[in-house]
Amino acid sequence: MFDGRSLDALFRPRSIAVVGASSNPNKIGGRPLVFLRQAGYAGAIYPVNPGAGEVQGLRSFQSISDIDKPIDHVIIAVPPREAIAAMKQCAAKKVKAVQVFTSGFGETGESGRKLQDELVATAKDAGIRLIGPNSLGLFNVPEKFFGTFATVLDGAWPTAGNVSFASQSGGFGSLCYVLAQARGLGFSHFITTGNETDVDVAECIAYLADDKCTHVIVAAFEGCRDGRRLIAALEVAHGRGKPVILMKVGTTEAGANAVQTHTGALAGRDAIYDAAFRQFNAYRAHSLDELVDCTYAASRGRLPRGSRLGVVTFSGGVGVLAADAAAEHELELPPLDKTAGARIKSILPNATVGNPLDTSAALVNDLSLYARIVEIVLEETSCDMVFGYLAAVGRNPQHYAQLKGPLFEVRRRYPDKLFVLTMACPEEVREELEREGFLWFEEPARAVAAAAAMAKLAKGLESRRAALGSAPRITLPRGPLSEIESKAVVAQAGISFLPERFVQSANDACETARQLGFPVAIKVVSRDIPHKSDIGGVRLDLRDDAQVAAAFDEIMQAVACKIPQARVDGVLVTPMVRGGVETILGVMRDSVFGPVVMFGLGGAYVEALKDVSFRVAPFDIGTARDMISETMAGRVLKGIRGAVPADVESLAATLARLSVFACANADVINGIDVNPYVVVSNGGYALDALVVPT
Amino acid sequence: MFDGRSLDALFRPRSIAVVGASSNPNKIGGRPLVFLRQAGYAGAIYPVNPGAGEVQGLRSFQSISDIDKPIDHVIIAVPPREAIAAMKQCAAKKVKAVQVFTSGFGETGESGRKLQDELVATAKDAGIRLIGPNSLGLFNVPEKFFGTFATVLDGAWPTAGNVSFASQSGGFGSLCYVLAQARGLGFSHFITTGNETDVDVAECIAYLADDKCTHVIVAAFEGCRDGRRLIAALEVAHGRGKPVILMKVGTTEAGANAVQTHTGALAGRDAIYDAAFRQFNAYRAHSLDELVDCTYAASRGRLPRGSRLGVVTFSGGVGVLAADAAAEHELELPPLDKTAGARIKSILPNATVGNPLDTSAALVNDLSLYARIVEIVLEETSCDMVFGYLAAVGRNPQHYAQLKGPLFEVRRRYPDKLFVLTMACPEEVREELEREGFLWFEEPARAVAAAAAMAKLAKGLESRRAALGSAPRITLPRGPLSEIESKAVVAQAGISFLPERFVQSANDACETARQLGFPVAIKVVSRDIPHKSDIGGVRLDLRDDAQVAAAFDEIMQAVACKIPQARVDGVLVTPMVRGGVETILGVMRDSVFGPVVMFGLGGAYVEALKDVSFRVAPFDIGTARDMISETMAGRVLKGIRGAVPADVESLAATLARLSVFACANADVINGIDVNPYVVVSNGGYALDALVVPT
Repeated sequence: MFDGRSLDALFRPRSIAVVGASSNPNKIGGRPLVFLRQAGYAGAIYPVNPGAGEVQGLRSFQSISDIDKPIDHVIIAVPPREAIAAMKQCAAKKVKAVQVFTSGFGETGESGRKLQDELVATAKDAGIRLIGPNSLGLFNVPEKFFGTFATVLDGAWPTAGNVSFASQSGGFGSLCYVLAQARGLGFSHFITTGNETDVDVAECIAYLADDKCTHVIVAAFEGCRDGRRLIAALEVAHGRGKPVILMKVGTTEAGANAVQTHTGALAGRDAIYDAAFRQFNAYRAHSLDELVDCTYAASRGRLPRGSRLGVVTFSGGVGVLAADAAAEHELELPPLDKTAGARIKSILPNATVGNPLDTSAALVNDLSLYARIVEIVLEETSCDMVFGYLAAVGRNPQHYAQLKGPLFEVRRRYPDKLFVLTMACPEEVREELEREGFLWFEEPARAVAAAAAMAKLAKGLESRRAALGSAPRITLPRGPLSEIESKAVVAQAGISFLPERFVQSANDACETARQLGFPVAIKVVSRDIPHKSDIGGVRLDLRDDAQVAAAFDEIMQAVACKIPQARVDGVLVTPMVRGGVETILGVMRDSVFGPVVMFGLGGAYVEALKDVSFRVAPFDIGTARDMISETMAGRVLKGIRGAVPADVESLAATLARLSVFACANADVINGIDVNPYVVVSNGGYALDALVVPT
Repeated sequence: MFDGRSLDALFRPRSIAVVGASSNPNKIGGRPLVFLRQAGYAGAIYPVNPGAGEVQGLRSFQSISDIDKPIDHVIIAVPPREAIAAMKQCAAKKVKAVQVFTSGFGETGESGRKLQDELVATAKDAGIRLIGPNSLGLFNVPEKFFGTFATVLDGAWPTAGNVSFASQSGGFGSLCYVLAQARGLGFSHFITTGNETDVDVAECIAYLADDKCTHVIVAAFEGCRDGRRLIAALEVAHGRGKPVILMKVGTTEAGANAVQTHTGALAGRDAIYDAAFRQFNAYRAHSLDELVDCTYAASRGRLPRGSRLGVVTFSGGVGVLAADAAAEHELELPPLDKTAGARIKSILPNATVGNPLDTSAALVNDLSLYARIVEIVLEETSCDMVFGYLAAVGRNPQHYAQLKGPLFEVRRRYPDKLFVLTMACPEEVREELEREGFLWFEEPARAVAAAAAMAKLAKGLESRRAALGSAPRITLPRGPLSEIESKAVVAQAGISFLPERFVQSANDACETARQLGFPVAIKVVSRDIPHKSDIGGVRLDLRDDAQVAAAFDEIMQAVACKIPQARVDGVLVTPMVRGGVETILGVMRDSVFGPVVMFGLGGAYVEALKDVSFRVAPFDIGTARDMISETMAGRVLKGIRGAVPADVESLAATLARLSVFACANADVINGIDVNPYVVVSNGGYALDALVVPT
């Protein structure tokens, strides 16, 4: 899906021209020249400005056509119609890549969209890779290439490092840059993609996965047009073992509305984005602070082997704060046993032994003991990571001098452990700690949260998918499906039903009920009635002939009264089975990600409870287990109030099968509801199903 | 409950003695002397150290008894047994207030607890107000009184301001101080209460409510022994119109376990703390970042009049981020109508008009337009607050010069609006913005969250409680109550039941069922069977004599088989009623807050769903409405899938009545379960009730 080499001219060009080059260093067309030379870009730079012979001391050209050397990369920063003309010249000149900074295209409405179409068609026909229009540009620090007018570079020049950012929105990308740069992160690439008429964030992720200098990929976007493309990019990064940290804004309805007015991108349902990110091992940050914290932690290059955390603090209260954060982010705090307790008490008699461990303030008398305590915790618990809180020890040179030697030694002896610290200190102390391989955070809960994120990233990078089964290809009749037809489709997806018989009279219903055994349920069969129970088309728990016959008549009357135009085929008779947990399984077509499977608690309150989880189809049984355990239904299935646990494993297999089936038949199926699907202690069965064809 | 004047000797003493005064400025007994003199404390300072004639250049005394002047406040920083001896001298000397920094008392176990009891009894008998033991001390910036050994003051001296902090944990309080001081906050009082043998955080809150210099009260704690005392303190602060911002650590099970090992304080159930804080108008911060952000915002002295936010940004992406945050924190984003749109487009044709409003980058050409846009938003929407994102304009002196004049003018013209900004800028620009009355945040979502917190604080400060009704006082029989007795109690709380008849034979059950009308339910009556349905003691939907008789026999067999020792009185026969929403109403005695009322969704999954809300009893109907709307049950009651809405108003009245009843009879009732309580379109009724006497 992605061909990284074709992007080299965008990200590491040997020559660049700027159309609309300005002598004013504050103008959009002036800034890139300033930045390129400030960075020491080694390639050729060709300002294009018909009104000037020289721009910022460089020889200027009348047009792209006037340049007599080959050009890899052109920046266009002139008004829309001139931009289109410049693009035509680029095509003629066989330019490889173009960035269009100009706004006033697709983001402004219909007339802008037409201009954009012309611009993009020209680029496409000529095989030009295009970023923008309406983009802020990009830079590549190791290559010293700065093709951007980003004002946030003023007074905050990037240092080279292993983090690369890709953002659709220039403004949002700039904000990320401000915060990340202030946090001391070093950069490889920084890319903004604007209107995404060609290169999008997904393609940048795939490109960065192959960039030697990039160890951590960070991406931010408001919406994405093609979720499968994003997933493909995430799989490339996963294959290269590179962590991807994402942030998507527009998570709420209000935010998503703002997305629509701003970019016209399809926001998709946020829960589905969330599920897709989890499913394909990208870490989703829910705030900019979290984005920067996680990027900082990941950029230090050490991921923990598991999620067991030891907490060793100077303060009980801060230990509790850290324990809260650990629980919230699903880290385990392995307990310290008696041996560990005795070893610690022999060193610090007033310590409160546990995890969190409170050293007590007596530690101030000899801070070298801190390292010994940490080492005991590592030896006795095999924690994967340690969080330490050390108050303001770093501000007291004598105290810090006692602390650091032994602590650095322990750090070296446990190279595969993650060490995370919070300690008020001057900047040079923080830098020394970071050089020695500690992560430093101002605030303990954020420190623990970042450690937890690293554990999740590590787990994601190690995860492997199981092979998927196959599914039959089906054909569907035209128009809406009857219940019987829907059930036949769902049965082909490997979902079991209770035995049921179709009858057309009250007498036959009674006869059938006697054969199946009382009590029974009867339901109307009609392709014109999607939600049968809402109109009185379902009667449960019928215990004898008289009740069955009465129910049959009542159903017919209810239908005739409420939906007189409905074509009624007859009724289904099914045995009533008690017990089990009612769930709902579904397939929907998401506008961004395509076929998506839903799982949740069934019953009357399903819509109010919104207890559902999603995964992009197809997926394996392990993924299905995850989606079950994310819901309250997952808790109910384990058995509440002493109930027998339901068969979660068979449910997971059913969901995985349904996902494969949904994908194999995405061309004919728009949606499936299996509701309720009753999970019992030994398997499960559907009671009803609705299939919506495309 | 609180007598603020008796604390003056603690917080604004005219003289102070330090027992264990040290010449070493790094020691616990040396630090307070350093700080007091660094601050320029005007009162008398008496070092007490039997081994020295002079300490840090001050005349030293052999003991408290040797000091020939009256002493308001004594700090004790010597080992436990010496501390007790010093306390006895303080009693003899009629010292008014003592702080004990010494640890090794109640926090370490049984032997320490005995020492603590002796220490505290001495203070109590002498009428000495006591902070500690095991406390870090306190300071009062306006009074220049620094009775603390807090190391976090090193290199980070507080400036005077209107914020006061009270924290049980010295370590946690220190961390709050580090972050708040770094954020530029100014302080009135900073107090740590340690083992809380006398003065606790609650009393500090009440004291600070009367402190002229304190405008914002911030409190942090791990647990509290007496929730009613905390509530009383919150009510004092509410009465004085002072915002209270709280943070409680130990929110999760892991955290709460750490609390228990650390302080022995009763952690209480976190959901109940949460409910109590909301009920009594304290703002609960869930992270230190939020604590500091909200304190910063509240300390600027401007609270918005409502929760309508206008968002005016330089970047669509950041606008979406802000809209997400606004939705998450329940702010309203009023839309801009056509008139507003036309006015804005006439100034900035490329702006994306809406709320959030994206000015487009064209604004860079004339930043003075920003103020005009903001003013149009204020005029056209009557927003209570505005959030502005201005990228890195503050780093460009020319741009900032264009921006600030007109923007400051708009700020002055709308003195009652809250203006919140995010803009990368040098510190002096930030300070200028703050002087002009803007709130400045580094990160947009945190800016919006803080604005939302201010709206909630403002609403809380304005809230008034309705008068509570009265409730009958009841007496209870000894021992467990039968279902009939339980229902009689609950009926006295004003809760309705369906008609039901008590019978003792299958024949009588059939006869009664005929009178009430089929279908009926029958339930076993026995004080020895609390959860009847779990053992087969309930049968529903019985439609004729035969079914009733069979069910009667089956129930008796089930009871005899499963709980042979149960004393069975008979069964209750009730008509079956369909429809309505099953909820659960409950009263429980919380170890911290006393009688607490619970509300939630009923039905089989109630324990798995944990969809419940709490309030401290008694409360008014408005509070009851809040507690209903916090639950998913609240959504169900509004009517899902076209169902008729249930009678929420009658439910709220029922909850309020139950709360008053629970309080009036707290001496005899330990707990009540009304489960299920069925809410219908016109009132509601209980189907079962269980009362647990004290």
